[in-house]
Amino acid sequence: MEIEKIIKRDVSYIQKIIDIGDVAMLVSRSDYGVLKSRPMETVGINNDGDIYFFTILSSELMRELTGNSQVNLSFTKEDHDYISVSGVTQVIKKKTDLVRFWNSRYEQWIPDGLDNPSIILLKVSLVSAEHWRHNTGLNRIRQFFSIGSSETNNVHESIES
Amino acid sequence: MEIEKIIKRDVSYIQKIIDIGDVAMLVSRSDYGVLKSRPMETVGINNDGDIYFFTILSSELMRELTGNSQVNLSFTKEDHDYISVSGVTQVIKKKTDLVRFWNSRYEQWIPDGLDNPSIILLKVSLVSAEHWRHNTGLNRIRQFFSIGSSETNNVHESIES
Repeated sequence: MEIEKIIKRDVSYIQKIIDIGDVAMLVSRSDYGVLKSRPMETVGINNDGDIYFFTILSSELMRELTGNSQVNLSFTKEDHDYISVSGVTQVIKKKTDLVRFWNSRYEQWIPDGLDNPSIILLKVSLVSAEHWRHNTGLNRIRQFFSIGSSETNNVHESIES
Repeated sequence: MEIEKIIKRDVSYIQKIIDIGDVAMLVSRSDYGVLKSRPMETVGINNDGDIYFFTILSSELMRELTGNSQVNLSFTKEDHDYISVSGVTQVIKKKTDLVRFWNSRYEQWIPDGLDNPSIILLKVSLVSAEHWRHNTGLNRIRQFFSIGSSETNNVHESIES
């Protein structure tokens, strides 16, 4: 048996597999330790694998992040393509940054858009990431990307006999 | 403006929207506070909203759960249908339970299947859950299910003007 797992150290890989418009389930941890997720649309991503979202300061998410800035982003793309990004959040309020990432379509999430006094950019700085993809030939999900983690054992790694 | 959010107390609702075979991104928390997710296939769900998965005791997931049994399950279904389940895990080793949920297809995750001495069922007992669904008429994502949580403010709630 051979465990197929390719470790890459190239953080720009994340930029290749996540697109603006992709929806992440963003997981935060409440003061009571409860893990909750909610859909968030990706509005930007850079070479370092940092991912940006718009939200408002009064959201439940921002209350939870006050106590704990560590989050997970889960992306489920078409046909069994799964990405986990572990990261740390940072709040960006600078108007020029907000304008740079803004698209009028986001008013569905943010009432009054850029005029909303509570609007912020949430930057998730990459700590570690993993990517699993469906292998149509073998009908197995294969983990083929992992970065920033020393942990290697996962039941969903592809195991070839 | 009217915030559309329907609170239901019927836990069996979860059984109606999650199917056996649906893949969850299961989020756990490491000792260092890092939140990680991995794809896990749903192998069972009951009337109480408890959801079952197969895994092995030596998995990274099980190591993380030793220190903290609280997890989140994120389901991303077709066409912008998102479910967050917060729960607490429990390990089930009883052979009759394993046999009841088993399908030979799961050998892709569990080498040697039911003969693997390390195989277990992971039961996630529902603590709270939320469901967002795409509203095609308004092109908005609308949260229309929430259970077990007193928190109500979320940027991704539907806001009608």
